[in-house]
Amino acid sequence: MASNVFDYFDIDELFTEEERLFRRTVRQFVDNEVIPIIEMHYRDGTFPMHLVPKMAELGLFGITLSPQYGGSGANYTSYGLAMMELERGDSAVRSFASVQNSLVIYPIYRYGCENIKKKFLPKLANAELIGCFGLTEPDYGSNPAGLISTAKKIDGGYVLNGTKMWITNGNIADIAVVWAKLDGVINGFIVEKGTKGYRAIEMKGKHSLRASNTSELILEDVEVPEENRLLIEGLKGPLSCLTQARYGIAWGAIGSALAVFESALNYSKSRIQFGKPIGAFQIIQEKLVWMLNEITKAQLLAYRLGRLKDQNKHRFQQVSLAKRNNVDIALQCARISREIHGANGILDEYPVMRHMANLESVKTYEGTHDIHTLILGEDITGFSAFI
Amino acid sequence: MASNVFDYFDIDELFTEEERLFRRTVRQFVDNEVIPIIEMHYRDGTFPMHLVPKMAELGLFGITLSPQYGGSGANYTSYGLAMMELERGDSAVRSFASVQNSLVIYPIYRYGCENIKKKFLPKLANAELIGCFGLTEPDYGSNPAGLISTAKKIDGGYVLNGTKMWITNGNIADIAVVWAKLDGVINGFIVEKGTKGYRAIEMKGKHSLRASNTSELILEDVEVPEENRLLIEGLKGPLSCLTQARYGIAWGAIGSALAVFESALNYSKSRIQFGKPIGAFQIIQEKLVWMLNEITKAQLLAYRLGRLKDQNKHRFQQVSLAKRNNVDIALQCARISREIHGANGILDEYPVMRHMANLESVKTYEGTHDIHTLILGEDITGFSAFI
Amino acid sequence: MASNVFDYFDIDELFTEEERLFRRTVRQFVDNEVIPIIEMHYRDGTFPMHLVPKMAELGLFGITLSPQYGGSGANYTSYGLAMMELERGDSAVRSFASVQNSLVIYPIYRYGCENIKKKFLPKLANAELIGCFGLTEPDYGSNPAGLISTAKKIDGGYVLNGTKMWITNGNIADIAVVWAKLDGVINGFIVEKGTKGYRAIEMKGKHSLRASNTSELILEDVEVPEENRLLIEGLKGPLSCLTQARYGIAWGAIGSALAVFESALNYSKSRIQFGKPIGAFQIIQEKLVWMLNEITKAQLLAYRLGRLKDQNKHRFQQVSLAKRNNVDIALQCARISREIHGANGILDEYPVMRHMANLESVKTYEGTHDIHTLILGEDITGFSAFI
Amino acid sequence: MASNVFDYFDIDELFTEEERLFRRTVRQFVDNEVIPIIEMHYRDGTFPMHLVPKMAELGLFGITLSPQYGGSGANYTSYGLAMMELERGDSAVRSFASVQNSLVIYPIYRYGCENIKKKFLPKLANAELIGCFGLTEPDYGSNPAGLISTAKKIDGGYVLNGTKMWITNGNIADIAVVWAKLDGVINGFIVEKGTKGYRAIEMKGKHSLRASNTSELILEDVEVPEENRLLIEGLKGPLSCLTQARYGIAWGAIGSALAVFESALNYSKSRIQFGKPIGAFQIIQEKLVWMLNEITKAQLLAYRLGRLKDQNKHRFQQVSLAKRNNVDIALQCARISREIHGANGILDEYPVMRHMANLESVKTYEGTHDIHTLILGEDITGFSAFI
Repeated sequence: MASNVFDYFDIDELFTEEERLFRRTVRQFVDNEVIPIIEMHYRDGTFPMHLVPKMAELGLFGITLSPQYGGSGANYTSYGLAMMELERGDSAVRSFASVQNSLVIYPIYRYGCENIKKKFLPKLANAELIGCFGLTEPDYGSNPAGLISTAKKIDGGYVLNGTKMWITNGNIADIAVVWAKLDGVINGFIVEKGTKGYRAIEMKGKHSLRASNTSELILEDVEVPEENRLLIEGLKGPLSCLTQARYGIAWGAIGSALAVFESALNYSKSRIQFGKPIGAFQIIQEKLVWMLNEITKAQLLAYRLGRLKDQNKHRFQQVSLAKRNNVDIALQCARISREIHGANGILDEYPVMRHMANLESVKTYEGTHDIHTLILGEDITGFSAFI
Repeated sequence: MASNVFDYFDIDELFTEEERLFRRTVRQFVDNEVIPIIEMHYRDGTFPMHLVPKMAELGLFGITLSPQYGGSGANYTSYGLAMMELERGDSAVRSFASVQNSLVIYPIYRYGCENIKKKFLPKLANAELIGCFGLTEPDYGSNPAGLISTAKKIDGGYVLNGTKMWITNGNIADIAVVWAKLDGVINGFIVEKGTKGYRAIEMKGKHSLRASNTSELILEDVEVPEENRLLIEGLKGPLSCLTQARYGIAWGAIGSALAVFESALNYSKSRIQFGKPIGAFQIIQEKLVWMLNEITKAQLLAYRLGRLKDQNKHRFQQVSLAKRNNVDIALQCARISREIHGANGILDEYPVMRHMANLESVKTYEGTHDIHTLILGEDITGFSAFI
Repeated sequence: MASNVFDYFDIDELFTEEERLFRRTVRQFVDNEVIPIIEMHYRDGTFPMHLVPKMAELGLFGITLSPQYGGSGANYTSYGLAMMELERGDSAVRSFASVQNSLVIYPIYRYGCENIKKKFLPKLANAELIGCFGLTEPDYGSNPAGLISTAKKIDGGYVLNGTKMWITNGNIADIAVVWAKLDGVINGFIVEKGTKGYRAIEMKGKHSLRASNTSELILEDVEVPEENRLLIEGLKGPLSCLTQARYGIAWGAIGSALAVFESALNYSKSRIQFGKPIGAFQIIQEKLVWMLNEITKAQLLAYRLGRLKDQNKHRFQQVSLAKRNNVDIALQCARISREIHGANGILDEYPVMRHMANLESVKTYEGTHDIHTLILGEDITGFSAFI
Repeated sequence: MASNVFDYFDIDELFTEEERLFRRTVRQFVDNEVIPIIEMHYRDGTFPMHLVPKMAELGLFGITLSPQYGGSGANYTSYGLAMMELERGDSAVRSFASVQNSLVIYPIYRYGCENIKKKFLPKLANAELIGCFGLTEPDYGSNPAGLISTAKKIDGGYVLNGTKMWITNGNIADIAVVWAKLDGVINGFIVEKGTKGYRAIEMKGKHSLRASNTSELILEDVEVPEENRLLIEGLKGPLSCLTQARYGIAWGAIGSALAVFESALNYSKSRIQFGKPIGAFQIIQEKLVWMLNEITKAQLLAYRLGRLKDQNKHRFQQVSLAKRNNVDIALQCARISREIHGANGILDEYPVMRHMANLESVKTYEGTHDIHTLILGEDITGFSAFI
């Protein structure tokens, strides 16, 4: 039997033909459309907007959404595979898809009234509308329960005030799902671009996710109609969205890991020093095997989690474990891969430093590594150690 | 849904009812018969021979062997589960079973002539006979190809000469599968206890696997009949046995890891310092979560490997990956668990230092950690870096 | 210039001739008297009492004590060097000396009244008397401030009640420095063996420091005369003793590290596999270099700390840093060394598993690794994170 | 006593007043001139040329060079302190100074004929001339002995051919010290900018050391006069320069480490989450203490190495140890610091990602981490494992 170093435990055979096909389609898109242009966007600090219609065409928005609202109706394993392939290209491209799918379409589908669903979901699925998700505030990152944005009931709707930060797609979004406290209780509201008092300002000076749009949202007496309030109360609303997004990240990070592993493996086979390929040295093989080992385990985690999620038997703590582990090992793979590339590893001819820098954000957003440690710690000990 | 911290990704539901039943049976045996007495044997440096008949009764020898030769005819997943439960008790007990199953019954079944199979297999399966496996030599550990024991053809059989070391069960075995070079080619021979010129001397002074018998075998002009030669030539003979044993170790190590994790978790919930259970401190939760994370991944590796093996689709390098990873994380779990137990962790009231010491051997035998690194490195780069 | 791998940054030249001489004397004692017999004592679980008079003769008790009380009047660098050489033999031997010097002679010298000093110090220095230090209680390990042993004032003295655990030398000590709360405030008392109500019971079942005596102390209405109370109140009394002991451990751990490093280096040069010494393989050199690097840094820490202490300019947090770091790297060296020794590394022919097991205790006592982390964390952030 | 978290073992008091004064001067320059503008240069990919005259004025070129040739005549400890302070600003600025001092002035001073020294050294010291060092070739990075550039003797001089890569300052240098093989033996030659056939092309697409100039040198039939040949033959010529540069890097890396540690510490004290500064959480304190511990040891290594070098008693392997360790821990500090900064850590308001990215180069150049491992491994085992 031949070995497939990128699928060392033959997980591919466990996917359905449909899942494999979807994956292949996304893979080709990434190879042909993303990888050739992404370093340039990274350097320039721009998101490749021209990819969005193609992504919509491939069904990459609303992947798991019911066809009745314009979605693809695929399962969560397929969703995971798509995130993996996209992040093999760049974390920014996957982030864009994560936001649209998990943080905008999902809450509207799950918590929106029927009117709202009909109004927004089909357009989000075909990318006529781009969405963003406003939860994090300048002083409330790891502790969203403390957020201070407010909503006030007025005739026919609500008035929103507050500031949101680190909002992916903020500046290019047509609608924002914004979380604010109504009588002290967290509620979600859909704010449409152009609403008076609503502004999104792109954040500059990033050393990571440079091909992603990251913005600040400012809400000053922004009025939204009654039906724009989501039908969920409390922190469990945004947390349910985060669980969706984290699930996708758990898969996505494998894509990054595979990209840097593949680059390192190829480099180690062709780069000659002391008369032989560096891949023939023990000190290099140890590094490659570290990556192989961790990627294989990450793949098994994601696969198993996907099947649990497709059966709706997953727990959010399982998602925390997979997100935490997979991003962490992806980041370590990127660092190791960079080292294997020697001096060449700092050049943009190779994807490694871009992935390495991106993964710093990915390790931090949607629950930092440490926050997931504490989520898991609480789950297994029964004691909360957040405070 | 409640969480099962020892099966965090709900792998249990993937086993068949038969597999689960077998596991439960072994588990009870270990809880009732092994754990209560094993520290004493460890301290005294003795193997608990009285357990052997009970183990035979439970079908723990010849687990995957065809019933036609007295085996249980179970699949390799069942075999793995049994090894896991046994090693939850002690690595020595699992080692005993590994040798009997993978290093004695397996090569005789696979490479023995029909006479030999009929003669030995049923008795090995019911533990009338205990076997051992003589491959390693004082100067040839990681490099068995270099072994210098010799076999010479004589009328009606062979004469064997050589010295073997680190032989589990050596001193208590009734038969030994011994590897020696016949005209420079590695061949396997069955040597029966009592044969002239054959001696087994127990090795003393061990700080690890103290409840296991470890011996030196000395062969001085030992004659064996023709039929005692196994029908396989070259290194692939013993290596195929090692792959079997390593497969079992990959599962077994999870048992050790679970034992030390469980002990740490319980301790952290009941030990109070500074007015609260130490399990409520971040610094302790990080350690517990490390174990949880690694054990979960080890379980997924073993499960997937088992299914591949049951379909006979596994590659030996996959076994190397799982053995290498799972023993390594088990050892690290033991070290972390010991630290969580504070001063109490050095006492034999807790199983942690025993497992920790045992796993040093387990990490070393059947291919050291580094040797498996190089096996994997060669597989993925195409370059051998052993020399 | 030739390299000295055990003094890679040429620290030896920084010691005075006197310091070097003292070190050499202790070194010879350890080579000749400790190393040949210590594995036997470890196996048997006995402390080598016969070494005590020789140690006294070498001036190993009361090393820094003024000659006026029978001490050697040496500086703290000399004290450190002695601890290092002793622990190169075994942590148990160094622990014995630590207790006598830092936990018994030190508090009596610093906090005892003149009578008491004259009565005990000369005999402690010449080992007519052996002492022990009773601070830790079953439920108060890392948090000694919570101790519940009590002292009550009576006519002419005090009545003590309580239980102490993990007391090195407890069972062989002639006097105990016991800490108990008098009107809620921690105070130290000298209890002489034979005093009514005072018992020391050896703890059994240890997997570590097996050549050390570890006991439980039980105090039931033990009466001590007035002068046996030390003239210090509050936690700073015992903590000042711990700082002394930790300082010695910071040096001692280097001895362990050197012992296992030397063994690994020798083994790697002589053990042949695949036709060359294993020390010629990259995968082994990485491990050896790790040890070299960490030992060199540990030596610099200890040296610098010694000079600060000799000038009385050290802070207890600096001692925490050195104890924490040096024990940690020593333990890791032991684990790595064991791995380099392959199967042979589990045998008592090599000192590695003994040191490895001992260092688990050393990492835990006198402030666990984590406690020192929090001491340092508080020092640099200004925030206490113990609770 | 108050603690100085950036000099935890009070090493400052070991420096002479002169050394401290020089350090302070450089520190002020970095605080005032480098830090405010360096992120902009990093972003733009430009070296801040305007700083060069100021650096010359401060005596930062020719630090250890004899005043007779325009140098400052300071010792190597002072040189190290300067490198540390410069790299606290940015690795690019320190790299510039390293090249001028260790790779250009040093070889000309040590190996140049008197004419050459008089011609170049004073101008290099006052920065009228900028130099670069051409050793590395596209296919010969870690193995410079294999370089293929050639020198051919002609009347009155030499003709050089070859390509050099990764040349710091290449594009802005007035002279280059180029290494090529003359009759198969490595020799050094000074090539002046403007010489026919000599070109330097800036390398683009760097993700690291972006504020540094990195170029390719192309030599096509470049003629240099006889006296431009350095009076040293063989690999020991360039290696002696590398030892100088590595020495400076060992100090420099501490500067980076201090910069990211300070930023993390400040952030952790002011960033509030869950109602308290994150520096009050155990999970953060562990990270801070890791940095504190490693930085303290790195400082001791550099200090000791400096004193050995000032006495000319250092060995090049000691320099390898310090370079390897200090850069490695600096890089790890940068990664940990970034994590502590949370999302903010990806912004250029904080210096952490810039240092993190820079240190990838620093870990690679002047001997990669792995090459230094093998240098040290050879030194302590006696076996070369490079091939």
